[in-house]
Amino acid sequence: MKLGFIGLGHMGAAMAANLVKAGHDVSVFNRTPARARPLIELGAHEAASVGEACDGKEAVITMLADDDAASEIALGEGGLVARLPKGSMHLSMSSISVALSKRLARVHAQAGQRYIAAPVFGRPAMAAAGKLFIVVAGDPATVEACQPLFRAMGQKAIVIGTEPAAANLVKLSGNFLLAAMIECLGEAFALTRKGGVDPHAYLEILTNTLFSAPAYKTYGTIIADQKYEPAGFKMSLGLKDIRLALAAADSLATPMPVASLVHDHFLSGVAQGAGDSDWSALARLAAANAGL
Amino acid sequence: MKLGFIGLGHMGAAMAANLVKAGHDVSVFNRTPARARPLIELGAHEAASVGEACDGKEAVITMLADDDAASEIALGEGGLVARLPKGSMHLSMSSISVALSKRLARVHAQAGQRYIAAPVFGRPAMAAAGKLFIVVAGDPATVEACQPLFRAMGQKAIVIGTEPAAANLVKLSGNFLLAAMIECLGEAFALTRKGGVDPHAYLEILTNTLFSAPAYKTYGTIIADQKYEPAGFKMSLGLKDIRLALAAADSLATPMPVASLVHDHFLSGVAQGAGDSDWSALARLAAANAGL
Amino acid sequence: MKLGFIGLGHMGAAMAANLVKAGHDVSVFNRTPARARPLIELGAHEAASVGEACDGKEAVITMLADDDAASEIALGEGGLVARLPKGSMHLSMSSISVALSKRLARVHAQAGQRYIAAPVFGRPAMAAAGKLFIVVAGDPATVEACQPLFRAMGQKAIVIGTEPAAANLVKLSGNFLLAAMIECLGEAFALTRKGGVDPHAYLEILTNTLFSAPAYKTYGTIIADQKYEPAGFKMSLGLKDIRLALAAADSLATPMPVASLVHDHFLSGVAQGAGDSDWSALARLAAANAGL
Amino acid sequence: MKLGFIGLGHMGAAMAANLVKAGHDVSVFNRTPARARPLIELGAHEAASVGEACDGKEAVITMLADDDAASEIALGEGGLVARLPKGSMHLSMSSISVALSKRLARVHAQAGQRYIAAPVFGRPAMAAAGKLFIVVAGDPATVEACQPLFRAMGQKAIVIGTEPAAANLVKLSGNFLLAAMIECLGEAFALTRKGGVDPHAYLEILTNTLFSAPAYKTYGTIIADQKYEPAGFKMSLGLKDIRLALAAADSLATPMPVASLVHDHFLSGVAQGAGDSDWSALARLAAANAGL
Repeated sequence: MKLGFIGLGHMGAAMAANLVKAGHDVSVFNRTPARARPLIELGAHEAASVGEACDGKEAVITMLADDDAASEIALGEGGLVARLPKGSMHLSMSSISVALSKRLARVHAQAGQRYIAAPVFGRPAMAAAGKLFIVVAGDPATVEACQPLFRAMGQKAIVIGTEPAAANLVKLSGNFLLAAMIECLGEAFALTRKGGVDPHAYLEILTNTLFSAPAYKTYGTIIADQKYEPAGFKMSLGLKDIRLALAAADSLATPMPVASLVHDHFLSGVAQGAGDSDWSALARLAAANAGL
Repeated sequence: MKLGFIGLGHMGAAMAANLVKAGHDVSVFNRTPARARPLIELGAHEAASVGEACDGKEAVITMLADDDAASEIALGEGGLVARLPKGSMHLSMSSISVALSKRLARVHAQAGQRYIAAPVFGRPAMAAAGKLFIVVAGDPATVEACQPLFRAMGQKAIVIGTEPAAANLVKLSGNFLLAAMIECLGEAFALTRKGGVDPHAYLEILTNTLFSAPAYKTYGTIIADQKYEPAGFKMSLGLKDIRLALAAADSLATPMPVASLVHDHFLSGVAQGAGDSDWSALARLAAANAGL
Repeated sequence: MKLGFIGLGHMGAAMAANLVKAGHDVSVFNRTPARARPLIELGAHEAASVGEACDGKEAVITMLADDDAASEIALGEGGLVARLPKGSMHLSMSSISVALSKRLARVHAQAGQRYIAAPVFGRPAMAAAGKLFIVVAGDPATVEACQPLFRAMGQKAIVIGTEPAAANLVKLSGNFLLAAMIECLGEAFALTRKGGVDPHAYLEILTNTLFSAPAYKTYGTIIADQKYEPAGFKMSLGLKDIRLALAAADSLATPMPVASLVHDHFLSGVAQGAGDSDWSALARLAAANAGL
Repeated sequence: MKLGFIGLGHMGAAMAANLVKAGHDVSVFNRTPARARPLIELGAHEAASVGEACDGKEAVITMLADDDAASEIALGEGGLVARLPKGSMHLSMSSISVALSKRLARVHAQAGQRYIAAPVFGRPAMAAAGKLFIVVAGDPATVEACQPLFRAMGQKAIVIGTEPAAANLVKLSGNFLLAAMIECLGEAFALTRKGGVDPHAYLEILTNTLFSAPAYKTYGTIIADQKYEPAGFKMSLGLKDIRLALAAADSLATPMPVASLVHDHFLSGVAQGAGDSDWSALARLAAANAGL
């Protein structure tokens, strides 16, 4: 397919690379152009602007850091809504708010364009390996047309409904579950460490009994090793996502006390200068609160 | 081995049955003698008292509901400490407090008896299938001597250290992690249900991506089905265990805010009459708090 | 002074009445014109539009329900920024966000107008009696010029600084302290009621010993009487204010765990249909959570 | 009256001194005898043991640090129950648990002795000035007989009921309200400090408007001054009292989420070495969590 790809952070660059390797014709754009270099060597074209990344494309994929970036790229002057050909699709894979996703759906429809939300679960290594989990929502025919793209980037694409924002809600709730799991592990490791249990032995028990899921292994290992730098996913981004989850919860009148608690701990971490540490440094806070 | 087995609740009865089936010579005792009947039909002997369950045994296993029961059976008049032969062992598999486990270790040692803590993870169906996870701590030689018993009752016995109370701490921390996971799932399901996502589709996503652990499948299914009765593990017992985790956390000066929150929710559930529902009815509270 | 007054809810109508009684020349505007009637009988002029409330005025006072209303009235087409004479002042007494207050300060300055933030503490009865507490921030000369207005509406006007948004932050923090006090009283009353202590005797003790402040008397009485309707200040507005406090806390990277907890309880109250009850119905939730 | 007084900490010594000054015949006992010296100079008699403080007394007052001390002095060998004359009364003014107070009521009754619970509110300076608030519960005639003692020690004695433990519950709930108020002030000061508001100006506003209670003045001043040492009431004692409040809440099935949160923060303070700071150092934690 003839594609544009906008947003070449750790995740986006890896995803775009997999699309190129799968044989798609990909024009890449990033605010900091230097990040496009490795992709161009791989065979991607360089787009000098958002508009150039849109011109003549069947689909443009966006993988951006936050609502502000996504909103400017899509809705700003010379953005996707202005430049994407009629009938083409915007495949939004960023973790954005439910509110912005609803707005994009509305505005793209008014402009005669198609819009699919397809946020992902997985850290950069999984993106590089094409092993992301992709949660998809939108018009069924459009979703179907994206399947080759999903296959190039992920190990599984799960369709959750026809309303794009539902995929964003599921993504945010999933990130909440991950952050909450990290908080809980942090408390449990602090408790058992203070009780004299070896953290690695403890990790063995957890992941060999009831918690044999990849998420527990990944984060349990980081916590047992106390190795929060370099970040796979920064705490400042974790804070951003939990903020979006709470915003959705607020507008749906759903109290989420653990999400509130995790938000406050992320906020504390960022206030204390750990915004660039891995978000699992929540566990370092839990340990510090116990005097460790 | 010549064994005593005290405590024939849902878990204990299934565990004792597996010991009988494995060929051990088991004398069973329960306060309500009727519960011993099926085991006697299976080949167990009936002990008329705690003392009789101790006389001439190599090991006595206890699987009791709480600290009060465990304390009375072990330390009360005619209890294990009084009646167990010197050199014999008390294999305590109940979820008891760290404080009581320390006390039992001390008192049994003074009485020339051996003491091993080996609490388990798993619901009644896993106990019946001999698939429990057993966390063990105590003197290595004594632990070694128990291995045939562990093989009869569990799929895995993991040795965590030589201090028995460490196993109880790990068990309590594990139950905290389970209860916290249920609370978090409850919040996430409430959020996504209010956002129009089908609970079973949501469950599919969670358990097919990052949370492919048995615990998420088991409790996610109960929550998606909203089927909290009959209880596999009662909320009143969940409350008991989180109370013990918080007591350990308090004495180790380790703040556990999610544990505190879960404690308060269990307390609310019990106050509102749900003490006999499954502990995963935490999710029903989360839904009710969102007006569902 | 020649004044405009926009926003005639329970609070605004009482405040405007006191300005009229103090001899000021007041033109009032409200979206629902019927609410202007009693004021016109008292001697106020009716303004047919926001613009008419601005024309030729020395100052326009706004007392609006939320950021949306305040933003539209001030920044919308035909709003204050467009219509207020140069050199005139906008005296914003609504409980609005820190972010909006900063924006209003900037925009009014660009338009050559003056802007003072002067939010109030007090329920409708205090407004009617001219007994409000007014927290003021802004340019000292402008603040000085407003003193006659403050005297007409309040028992005390306290100047907190020259940056208008500081007054809004103080107001939001004050409402947080009130909401938190209510939550805490709710928990304490639930505990003592379940322990057999008479609520009115308990209230006597609290307010005659360490907590002899008006806020404890006012809300303690409502809670002891369990009389949450009609509302003096609606729970839905309490939710709005705590949301603004948390937004300010988030942007200042200040974790406020009790504010988060109160937010979640308000959200639950609103989700369960109590949005129109008094915000002190937080205590009814605390009681319900204890099975009362 | 012929009195014994046991427990000469900061509070007890001041209270005993006021009883001596009021003309009562007081025999004092303290584990560390040196603390009795100033009282003996004032006219008190020295008791060499608990028993000697009981012999021939109409009433024995206890003011001890915690349940362990109170329990040993009352129930231990040579303690009050063993040595107090029949018909004499034990006036327990310590902050002890509801459970222990119930037990003391039962045991004293069995021994033919009278028992009144009369815990106090107030810091050492208030104790020295005879300005404590005393919450009293017990048999009306016995309470009446104690009034001269209450007048010597406090500015007000409020009778809450005939069941002694009710006074302990009220005391614990009051300490919860104080600790919660401190936590909330800590969050509000952190927020406004980060927003550029001067802490002393902020304190002025709070205590001159809705929060004109002594408790807000006392603790608001400490927080604005950031002067947490020396302690008027140690954080480790605050932790002890909130633990007792939560124990009562647990046994009455009353969730108290703010109490849980305050408990966790006290625990963190103690774990980080601030156990001997004033309990209002909760606010220092709130500031630290905001990076201040």
